[in-house]
Parts: sequence; structure tokens; C-alpha cells
Amino acid sequence: MAVYTEVSDEDLDAFLQRYDLGRVLSCKGIAEGIENSNFLLQTETGNYILTLYERRVARRDLPYFLALMAHLAAHGVACPTPVRARNGEALGELSGKPAAIVGFLMGQWPRRSTAEQCSALGEAMARLHEAGRSFAMTRANDLSLAGWRSLIAARHARADELQPGLGAELDGEIAALERAWPRDLPEGVIHADLFPDNVFFLGDKLSGIIDFYFACNDILAYDLAIAMNAWCFEPDGSFNVTKARALFSGYARVRPLAAEETAALPVLARGAALRFAATRLYDWFADTGSALVRRKDPLEYVKKLRFHRGVAGPAAYGLA
Amino acid sequence: MAVYTEVSDEDLDAFLQRYDLGRVLSCKGIAEGIENSNFLLQTETGNYILTLYERRVARRDLPYFLALMAHLAAHGVACPTPVRARNGEALGELSGKPAAIVGFLMGQWPRRSTAEQCSALGEAMARLHEAGRSFAMTRANDLSLAGWRSLIAARHARADELQPGLGAELDGEIAALERAWPRDLPEGVIHADLFPDNVFFLGDKLSGIIDFYFACNDILAYDLAIAMNAWCFEPDGSFNVTKARALFSGYARVRPLAAEETAALPVLARGAALRFAATRLYDWFADTGSALVRRKDPLEYVKKLRFHRGVAGPAAYGLA
Repeated sequence: MAVYTEVSDEDLDAFLQRYDLGRVLSCKGIAEGIENSNFLLQTETGNYILTLYERRVARRDLPYFLALMAHLAAHGVACPTPVRARNGEALGELSGKPAAIVGFLMGQWPRRSTAEQCSALGEAMARLHEAGRSFAMTRANDLSLAGWRSLIAARHARADELQPGLGAELDGEIAALERAWPRDLPEGVIHADLFPDNVFFLGDKLSGIIDFYFACNDILAYDLAIAMNAWCFEPDGSFNVTKARALFSGYARVRPLAAEETAALPVLARGAALRFAATRLYDWFADTGSALVRRKDPLEYVKKLRFHRGVAGPAAYGLA
Repeated sequence: MAVYTEVSDEDLDAFLQRYDLGRVLSCKGIAEGIENSNFLLQTETGNYILTLYERRVARRDLPYFLALMAHLAAHGVACPTPVRARNGEALGELSGKPAAIVGFLMGQWPRRSTAEQCSALGEAMARLHEAGRSFAMTRANDLSLAGWRSLIAARHARADELQPGLGAELDGEIAALERAWPRDLPEGVIHADLFPDNVFFLGDKLSGIIDFYFACNDILAYDLAIAMNAWCFEPDGSFNVTKARALFSGYARVRPLAAEETAALPVLARGAALRFAATRLYDWFADTGSALVRRKDPLEYVKKLRFHRGVAGPAAYGLA
């Protein structure tokens, strides 16, 4: 739930003067998204999402994210298209924050995902990876190994409050992943945050992908590992191999995985679990002040990490 | 910001089977409203607001509120119209909570109100009061004098933490209002919560009134007193007599105030200020658990109370 910035009518009207979207009919803060303030904006020309960029999203990265969305949408990936102001710019400023308007995407994110949805997600992710090949800009992943190490270091003294021994366990995991992390797998543009609340469906048909604010250049199969962690564990912590198989086979319909990508999945999945354990651990002990943010449980991802540490190989994910 | 209940796709689909609204295209939690969970629902037939009734709104009162909205909308008051399911019922159950769908109202609530908007509000309020005459159901105001007394009693021991002497001051105020409260003024259906966030405008044109969940039968002029407190004080605490005059003259265009109603305004305004001071004081020291609710400052309304205690008569509000 997130609306950090109150936008006055006057500010909004002035902001929209820069666009050809007609008069504002309605503008409501949306109780979704944690990083930014999002509003469902209705004007005489249609429905849009207005985003004010708050903490964590670096201003210097915004042109990358907006250009990527425009590129992907132009190349057939179902995702929001940034709306350009009359001066050609998609990025503006509203109530003192960087702000952009994107097209409204129909659909709902699945509260309980199905194997069919995992399959559709795999296919859409592969199309995103393919469309990303011709995208000219690049952005390093600042939440890769070095980033995890510093997040965990910043909370090391408090990790054991969550579970005794957790600090040492995460240190060992970082060290193991630094040794084992693959160096020569295919890389490209990845979404890097393909959780269910970022993927919209109309029934089992995928209607679009949103929230590209962690997108970057990294190992393509790492994107699959992130999604597998987010989609293929049930609420009780059990791993649903049917959903994993559906995810991978959906992906392979568009972009077949090389043998070395498949072989690397267990270590990529450990890394993907550690990444979210690290950011959640960091946020758990952050002083949020009066911000109305619901903290996410770091231990959920520690458990996923342990699961992947224990698997014998990619066969555990339903892969041959 | 309020979405207390997560609604699964399956639950929503099952709920909508009872209506003739077509397929769900989108359903987003809205970061507005404190008492209930609100969703902007888009279906094949249009846009709606889906509300799940949470704490404070008593289930037994819901038929009154929904019937009142339907009655007012049918009598030309711009307000949301409840949508009936195929069985004729406007009230259903979703995810274990009472739930209803109402039509979507265009417009935005004013973050900084103008005198023109106060005038339009006065006129709309008088139309609401007039339309309420033919409404057959009644509901007592449970946030009237006796209600204030018990809310303040429940927090008496802690009131002085906010400001030394506050507990005694509020006791004295209750006693004074019990003696001075008018007994013979015209009564009828009042909204009882006409704050700016419950009144939508397109420019200076009032497009509708929402949130009837405090509506009840009480003194009509008390509704004006509540709105005067909510609309006619500036953020720095000063009283804007131009806005007050606009509010009263807008009202009088539809329903002229009797001399005894005008004369009673200072005491009604003290009562209206005490009512919100009392609920805010109660909430200030309530254990909200993990609920993401922004508390409102009780002292804002204590200051308004003191202002009204100090006025010589209705002339202070710009009234002759």
C-alpha cells in the first residue's frame, strides 16, 4: 500500500497541461506497490497510471526504465507504454518528485497462481528477453552479489534476532555463491522482480507485465530463478514442481534453455532467494518512520534458500 | 489508506456471478477511506467501487446506508448508486465481509478548497436534506452527546498526555453542551461527515458526495456545523469567513435557515468540533495492531472547539 505524496488538484492540472490527455476526470491513489506512489488517473482520453517516484528508485535510472518499457511495448511485449508529454519527454516532475504517466493495463494479478499462469509467465518472460536484445541502453544490476553482501553486512548484528545463527548462515551462503556463481551464461535485459503482483491476467491469459524498476542487464536464467521462487512455492513452503515445470516449458517454447543454463539453475535459485532474503532483512530493521509499509518476512526467503541448497540438481525442479 | 482485506480472484469472480456486470477487467485497492476496504472495479459494463465493510460500520446499519444512497440518487442528489445483484439485494458477502458495489463517481476531492466549492457544497447539502424528507428509514446518531461523553471517558486518563488540562477541558465542554444543546431545531437525514475527501468536484462543479456511513437522523443545521469546521478553517488554524459565508449562502439558496437555526450555530459548531476531537482522541490511543492507519490530530479539533467557544454569535461566521 503506498501513496507517499499527496498531489494537489492545482499541481496535477499544471502537470497535465504538458500532455495531450484532456481534462482530469478522476485520480485515485492505489494501494499497491511499495516503492512509489501510484494513482489511477482517468482523463477525457482514457485511463492511465500516474507514478511519482519515491525512495529507492534512483532518478538517474528513470530514463532507462521508461525507455525500456517503450521499447518492449513497441516490440510486442504486453507492458505499460509511457505517455510522452508534448515536448517528447516521458519523465516530468510533479509535487517535487519525478513523475511519469503510463497506459493503463487491464487485468488482475493472481493471489493464488495456477500452473497455466506459470506457463504463460514463462512464455512472456522469454519474449521479454528476446525483445530486450535490440534495446540499446544498459544498466548494471545493483542488487547482485556485491549488493547482497553489503545489505547483509548492514544488518548482520541483528539477523540473529530473527533466528539464532542466521547471520553466520547468510555469510556462509554469500561465500559459497561467490565461488559458485556462473560467469559465462547468456545475459541480457531481465525484469528481475517478476512476482505475481507484477503480472496481470485476464483469466489464465497474461495481459501484461508491470513494474520494471529493478530491470537491468544480468544472466537471463536468473530471471527464471527469481520467478520460480516467487511462483512455485505454496503458502505452506512446499515446492510445487508442476508449476515449475510449467514455467520452464512455457519459457522454452520461445527460448530453449542451453544445457549449462539448466545446470546452473540450483545455484541461480539460491542466489535469487538470497537476494530477497537480504533486502527483506535490511527492510525489516529499517526505521520506516511514519511510512505505511507492510514489512515482508525475510525468513520466507531463507527457507527457500535452504530448499535450493538441498537439491541434487535441476531434476528437483521437474527438469530432465 | 485502507485495504484491510485481500480479495482473491476466485472470491471476486464468485461474488460477481451474482450480478449482471460482465467479466472483471481490473480491480485495484484504493488508498482512500479509513473505515472500509475500497476497490476500483472495472468490468465489461463500466467502472464501479467495491466496498468491503470493516470495523466500526455495524452490519445492522448497512441496509440503511445503502437504501439511503439509492433514495438520494433517485431524488437527484449526486451520489453513488448501489448496484443490485440479480436477486435484488445491494448487500452481499465477499471474503467473509459484508460487501456492496456502487457506481463510480467522476471527480476529485479538493486538497485546498475554494469559496466557490464551499458554496456548491452548501447547495448540495441542502438538496440532500430536502431529498431526505421522503426517506422512510431512520437511524439515530450514535455519535451524538452521549457518544462523545463515553469516548472521552474511555481516554480521560490519557488526554493530558496530549496537552496538560485537556481531560478537564473536555469534561467541562461536555457539561456545557449538555446544558446548551438545542432541542427544537428542524431534524432530518444528515450526512454527518461532509469533509473535503467525501465531496468530489470537476473544477468548481460538485460532481458528487460519497461515504454515507455516518449518515443518521439529527439536527439539519448540525450538518452545516460539521462542514463549516471541515471546510472553513485554513491549515494555519485561521477561520476563513469568506468560505463560511459561501457555505451558508449556498445552503440558503435551496433551504433558507430559520432564525433559531442560525442562532444555534455557535453551539452546534462547538458540538461538531467536540465530536471529532472525541473520536480522534479515542483513536489516538487505540491499539491499531498492524493496521496501516494514519492517525488524525485531536488537537486540531480542540483548537476549533476553542474558537467557537470564543465567538459572540453567528456574526462571527459572516452571518447577519
